[in-house]
Amino acid sequence: MVLSSRDDLKALVKEIQPVNRLVMEQAQARLDNLTKPRGSLGELEVLARRICGIQDTIRPALGRKIILTFAADHGVAMEGVSSVPQAVTRQMVANFLRGGAGVNVLARHVGAEVWVIDVGVAAEINEAGLISRKVRAGTANLAQGPAMEVAEALQAMGVGVETARAAISKGARILGTGEMGIANTTPSAALFAALLGVKVEEITGRGTGIDDATLNHKIAVIKRALAINQASLQDPLASLAALGGFEIAAICGMILECARSRVAVVVDGFISSAGALVALQLAENAGDYCFFSHMSAEQGHRIFFDKLGLSPLLHLNMRLGEGTGAALAMGLIEAGVKIINEMATFAEAGVSA
Amino acid sequence: MVLSSRDDLKALVKEIQPVNRLVMEQAQARLDNLTKPRGSLGELEVLARRICGIQDTIRPALGRKIILTFAADHGVAMEGVSSVPQAVTRQMVANFLRGGAGVNVLARHVGAEVWVIDVGVAAEINEAGLISRKVRAGTANLAQGPAMEVAEALQAMGVGVETARAAISKGARILGTGEMGIANTTPSAALFAALLGVKVEEITGRGTGIDDATLNHKIAVIKRALAINQASLQDPLASLAALGGFEIAAICGMILECARSRVAVVVDGFISSAGALVALQLAENAGDYCFFSHMSAEQGHRIFFDKLGLSPLLHLNMRLGEGTGAALAMGLIEAGVKIINEMATFAEAGVSA
Repeated sequence: MVLSSRDDLKALVKEIQPVNRLVMEQAQARLDNLTKPRGSLGELEVLARRICGIQDTIRPALGRKIILTFAADHGVAMEGVSSVPQAVTRQMVANFLRGGAGVNVLARHVGAEVWVIDVGVAAEINEAGLISRKVRAGTANLAQGPAMEVAEALQAMGVGVETARAAISKGARILGTGEMGIANTTPSAALFAALLGVKVEEITGRGTGIDDATLNHKIAVIKRALAINQASLQDPLASLAALGGFEIAAICGMILECARSRVAVVVDGFISSAGALVALQLAENAGDYCFFSHMSAEQGHRIFFDKLGLSPLLHLNMRLGEGTGAALAMGLIEAGVKIINEMATFAEAGVSA
Repeated sequence: MVLSSRDDLKALVKEIQPVNRLVMEQAQARLDNLTKPRGSLGELEVLARRICGIQDTIRPALGRKIILTFAADHGVAMEGVSSVPQAVTRQMVANFLRGGAGVNVLARHVGAEVWVIDVGVAAEINEAGLISRKVRAGTANLAQGPAMEVAEALQAMGVGVETARAAISKGARILGTGEMGIANTTPSAALFAALLGVKVEEITGRGTGIDDATLNHKIAVIKRALAINQASLQDPLASLAALGGFEIAAICGMILECARSRVAVVVDGFISSAGALVALQLAENAGDYCFFSHMSAEQGHRIFFDKLGLSPLLHLNMRLGEGTGAALAMGLIEAGVKIINEMATFAEAGVSA
């Protein structure tokens, strides 16, 4: 799908419906009739119930599980906000395509596939399996002006919509977000600061592992970005364009498309949450379809959850991104789905209720 | 293995060695050389490192994954401490053997097997697949005197040792604890109170879901049990005999045998933790081999972790037991093992370190 205007985006958002609360009640009734004390499977029951509400059935199926890992580069890397050279973005894309990265290992572990999409890497990549949808070879430096034009942000969101739709058309009923982009905790923290109204010092963390001096510099860079782009921070889309990245925009679009298609979407970590935040501010109902996988070790992630009143599934002190947290959480969501589908009822098992 | 005396137990405990810390350092060096920022896979790296220390290799393998679910009844059920009739213990054993219970679904999900052992159910059970090692048809009522003789507790521990050894001999390199026994949060809370020196009111919870009046009654019953058995609460083994259950003793024995055999053991929930606590008090090094799967919704579980300075892997508000939490945690531990075995190094992937 091409998003060529704000009107296209509005039309997409308008199609997003809330999940079926009545089916969720029916799902809980079934869960209460399975051979266990009521509610004793805790979050697994919550997950199963929500999948039922999303899929409009109390016998849900996840089909293929697919993680979409969007890669892009960031002009702000030139400010020295990361300890890792920009070339690592394309090197890691190659690693994803050859199956050697963390997300590959964890996706295989839970029976998921990884699709890798170049939405803006600052290098030509000729690797088999890559989905090439480059908007531009990296964003502009957000500390000097807008990272993207609004039209580019819409184009990157459209890549997310298109690839999510392709995955769904191939049988996926649960998607996971993933990303790669050296320096991308910087645009993410800038977006959280702008859209949540929190202090830059609180939301900004160490990313791949920067030292105190670099952290202070990163905070100063983000403050400069917020100041120079202040006129654009009036609405979520304009903020995304001014401060975000192509992969963050693509994740935002992917989440909107999953919600429109009534497909569960598992949100990975800190950077994916920035994309999710834009999606939630554009489309309130989109939250019904989002499963937040884990609390990142990146310091600002807790603030995001606190501000939104949400709790992630896992607390494993991870901070790798790529879709690694989404992969693990997919395994838990599938466990919940199997509980409602496969456990015996009291009557079936001859167990006193 | 028959444990027929305290000396047999001492001999077993004496064979338990600490894990190999040098191999754990070598494992971390390998983890630091994989294509990710150092430490960015958080707890998965901690898990992988410890499995390496347990198995004495930086290329570990989990082999078969087996959950041992021990079932037994409790004389204290006659005090009305549970909302569920005692007959449900044997009914659920049949459900386990037919594959319809929560632990079966979650074990299948992670590729684990469930072995079901009758170590003291108050009924004859003729079901294919059951491992029959009944010590007695339920414990005595701990509110009126000792639940077990010390010799019976040793016998039940021996069942745990024997079945763990059988699973290991068949290729298991990770075992999970599980249990079924109506009323068994009562002996568990009593054991925690006695062995951790915490208040009965704080450690006692609602089990399958009792109301306020029954909870107050349960607290009074536990206080009576502690008073009447006070002379036996001098050491872990005597406390286990006076207050415990056959399944709790079996779990204790199973953990000791895993530690002796240098095999990882995943501890399920509140009741399994009571068995683990006895094992840790008997054998300090046994803790090196224990992976605590989750924080149960049963209120006292948090106190157990706080007192021991431990953190469980998962926080999913579960309180079913059976081995359900152990199953899910096995999946995470396996994820950690795959990370160290399957991820590409910087050199292999051509990624700048």
